Amino acid sequence: MFEATKLGREVTKDDFKREELELRTDLLAAQRELRGTSTSVVILILGVDGAGKGRVVDRLNEWLDSRGMQTFAFWDETDEERERPRYWRFWRSLPSRGEISILFGGWYQEPFENRFCGDRTDGQFDSEMKRIADSERMLTRDGSLVVKFWLHMPEKAQRTRLKKLKRDDPDLWKTLPRKGDLTKHYRSFEAVAERMIRLTDTGATPWYLIEATNHRYRDLTIGRTLLRSIRNRLNQPVVEADDIPPSDAPSLPDEPSARITVLDQVDLERTLDPETYKKHLSNLQGEIHDLAWKAYRSKRSTVMVFEGADAGGKGGAIRRITGGIDSRLYRTIPVAAPTDEEKAHHYLWRFWRHLPRAGRITIYDRSWYGRVLVERVEGFATAPEWQRSYAEINRFEEQLVNSGVIVLKFWVHISPEEQLARFKQREETPHKQHKITDEDWRNRERWDDYLLAVNEMVVRTSTEYAPWILVPGNNKKFARTFVLEQVRNTLKKVL
Amino acid sequence: MFEATKLGREVTKDDFKREELELRTDLLAAQRELRGTSTSVVILILGVDGAGKGRVVDRLNEWLDSRGMQTFAFWDETDEERERPRYWRFWRSLPSRGEISILFGGWYQEPFENRFCGDRTDGQFDSEMKRIADSERMLTRDGSLVVKFWLHMPEKAQRTRLKKLKRDDPDLWKTLPRKGDLTKHYRSFEAVAERMIRLTDTGATPWYLIEATNHRYRDLTIGRTLLRSIRNRLNQPVVEADDIPPSDAPSLPDEPSARITVLDQVDLERTLDPETYKKHLSNLQGEIHDLAWKAYRSKRSTVMVFEGADAGGKGGAIRRITGGIDSRLYRTIPVAAPTDEEKAHHYLWRFWRHLPRAGRITIYDRSWYGRVLVERVEGFATAPEWQRSYAEINRFEEQLVNSGVIVLKFWVHISPEEQLARFKQREETPHKQHKITDEDWRNRERWDDYLLAVNEMVVRTSTEYAPWILVPGNNKKFARTFVLEQVRNTLKKVL
Repeated sequence: MFEATKLGREVTKDDFKREELELRTDLLAAQRELRGTSTSVVILILGVDGAGKGRVVDRLNEWLDSRGMQTFAFWDETDEERERPRYWRFWRSLPSRGEISILFGGWYQEPFENRFCGDRTDGQFDSEMKRIADSERMLTRDGSLVVKFWLHMPEKAQRTRLKKLKRDDPDLWKTLPRKGDLTKHYRSFEAVAERMIRLTDTGATPWYLIEATNHRYRDLTIGRTLLRSIRNRLNQPVVEADDIPPSDAPSLPDEPSARITVLDQVDLERTLDPETYKKHLSNLQGEIHDLAWKAYRSKRSTVMVFEGADAGGKGGAIRRITGGIDSRLYRTIPVAAPTDEEKAHHYLWRFWRHLPRAGRITIYDRSWYGRVLVERVEGFATAPEWQRSYAEINRFEEQLVNSGVIVLKFWVHISPEEQLARFKQREETPHKQHKITDEDWRNRERWDDYLLAVNEMVVRTSTEYAPWILVPGNNKKFARTFVLEQVRNTLKKVL
Repeated sequence: MFEATKLGREVTKDDFKREELELRTDLLAAQRELRGTSTSVVILILGVDGAGKGRVVDRLNEWLDSRGMQTFAFWDETDEERERPRYWRFWRSLPSRGEISILFGGWYQEPFENRFCGDRTDGQFDSEMKRIADSERMLTRDGSLVVKFWLHMPEKAQRTRLKKLKRDDPDLWKTLPRKGDLTKHYRSFEAVAERMIRLTDTGATPWYLIEATNHRYRDLTIGRTLLRSIRNRLNQPVVEADDIPPSDAPSLPDEPSARITVLDQVDLERTLDPETYKKHLSNLQGEIHDLAWKAYRSKRSTVMVFEGADAGGKGGAIRRITGGIDSRLYRTIPVAAPTDEEKAHHYLWRFWRHLPRAGRITIYDRSWYGRVLVERVEGFATAPEWQRSYAEINRFEEQLVNSGVIVLKFWVHISPEEQLARFKQREETPHKQHKITDEDWRNRERWDDYLLAVNEMVVRTSTEYAPWILVPGNNKKFARTFVLEQVRNTLKKVL
């Protein structure tokens, strides 16, 4: 695979000087054109040690305008990063639309090193590469351009380079996270790189193998490749792929019988008398209180998602949960209109942002499922957009669960008659009037559309690792204790 | 001081129920009204142990709408927080305009505890209280409403309460950051509290002492006080105070002789020949490279600020610095138009946001000084706004320096003739054309206004701990090596 990076290609000083000027002008023009478009650019720089990854980053920082460009390395991570799923740090570093992020190593670094040091089997490595390919496809579909560079050089050239580096700066060497003796393993390094590249080299996110022996050739080639990639993207915006990624469930038949939904199974008749409720609630809150502290001590974090019809009682249920938890341990994130920083990113970005630290709880009052509910029904998302979300969401939640986050998803279900009664009651109760708006009445008219959307959501995203819990919501007291029981049971089982 | 909190006032269950309903409705209405205004609300909750600070926070979370409200505690801080000036965590928790933040303890917690445990003298404590009062005044002037509650109870009532808490939940007790034996020191606790309150109780940001023995009285009183405070603010927006805070320098006389500015002292004739430049630059970059790593190892962070006339050569100087530093150690923050999240906060918020972690470097390409330069000259900030900025900026930089951050501020100065020559050259050089806009030409016409603003900025904000460095910029080579020398010298001296 790496033959073309060992040809000994060079660029003379004079040629470099001349060509650099033109390239730089063009790069700046492309960067300016990029601004104001919905495309963001993610540049990943990897390669063998001594190939000059740092120099390449410096060069790009020199050539491009620092406005709208940032560089990220992932070598000394903070505990805020370590306490969250691995990808949190990468979401943090993704560029806004119209901007550029340069990532040293990025999401490849850790699996590469682990595989190289033998901490991971080929099988584990392969499935991580699969996951990376999925993530990159997700970004690409959202309008990102992902440009991946692998800097390579022949074994001999590398050895010479490393010796020189060591001589020039023994100090720097010591502070580098990886040890010089890696160079001995040139061949096995190359083998892992080949496997990594092979598994993640796709038409939309290709790897560019760069011969790095001559630094002028290296830099010019990278600059030109980047320029061409940006230009291509600007000339030909990403075509909506019709290959919707597979979800975890087959498509639903589009026929009348589909009108029978999973929600029909929810027994809305269940009730609870006030006395039992009061006692039961208080006990449950006490248990949850202790479990939340236990989760804190064992550094397990929890994500709860509440979805449901308007006036379904999400808020009331959430307040009964939080009523039992020390306010230092949880955060409620009510999903309102996105800020412009949020709009400038993939729709999952704003939820990644609020993921809890180790041992904490984040409760999302409405969530990423808005994509396949309100955005679908109201047409805010295109069909390909919401259709591919099922798989994106499943992968997102899988990442949470795999990194030890406890995920609880509640759909609070009520009958249309109950909703009507609550709407009317809200209009009549002064401190509840703010909860009822014209939009609620409009949504109500589309009850059936929402029902189908909810049905498909549940079918497609109720996974083994993050199943939906359907809450019978017609009786508030029953619903609340039901939710709290689920929370208690799950925490108890896991902790 | 605390007599009024020991009167044994109570509210019966029935009264509470009735009054709560009305209060809650009113609070929600006030909160809704708050949205869309430029006022944000900061609620600080402090008090003696066992007074129910946590319960009060829970209650407020129950009464208010969780949209636009967040709660923050500062008990187990992350290394991202510890690695930055103390106030970084508080800036992180400030509400956007129209929203509410509830802070447990907030900025009072640490100085209070340190004083109580005897780690700080009265003198140190007093000057910290002075700093807090300044900060609160800054927030208030920017439109924030700061409501401070101190929950208090008689010694006997506290002892009973603590015993009960310990019995109910020995587990929780263990995880609490502070030890139960604090209760023995009731009197000295009260004395520190009295001193703290006395020093920070101002007309604009008063303390409310709340009798906490009866929890219903406590909660109702806090709710009502909060309601009244928000209502008052909404009815009578903050009046532009004409008491501009004192800066570190006397006012400048407004007369023709003021036209002679500190910038006239800058010797613009200094030059450097290309050969010397090349060698000198390379040496300096090498030294800075090593010093940056040394700073990293000794966990000293650096903030550099670059201001200067358009085409003054800020960018070129910055790139020469960063050319010497490992790209993992620095970040350049070019100051562009604020995002809406940034606009929803005090103007310093967006700069706090990017402060470096321990051992890192942030370079601001334009900075908070925009407030007293472009915003002043173009009228984007009102006179009181930019006038009070001098003192705010000085305090901000003092905080940086006090927490160990190395601060370097450069004004790159050029003559109007040199600027004209560069503008023309930019227009003729393809890869520089993007750097020259109509706005640059417009700014140029206001050269004299800018000069006066710069003069006042330098006079008022060149402090002992963070002096301005005036850079003779007519000769780019000289300017760059001059800047790099300053960086080298400062780092060398400090490290």
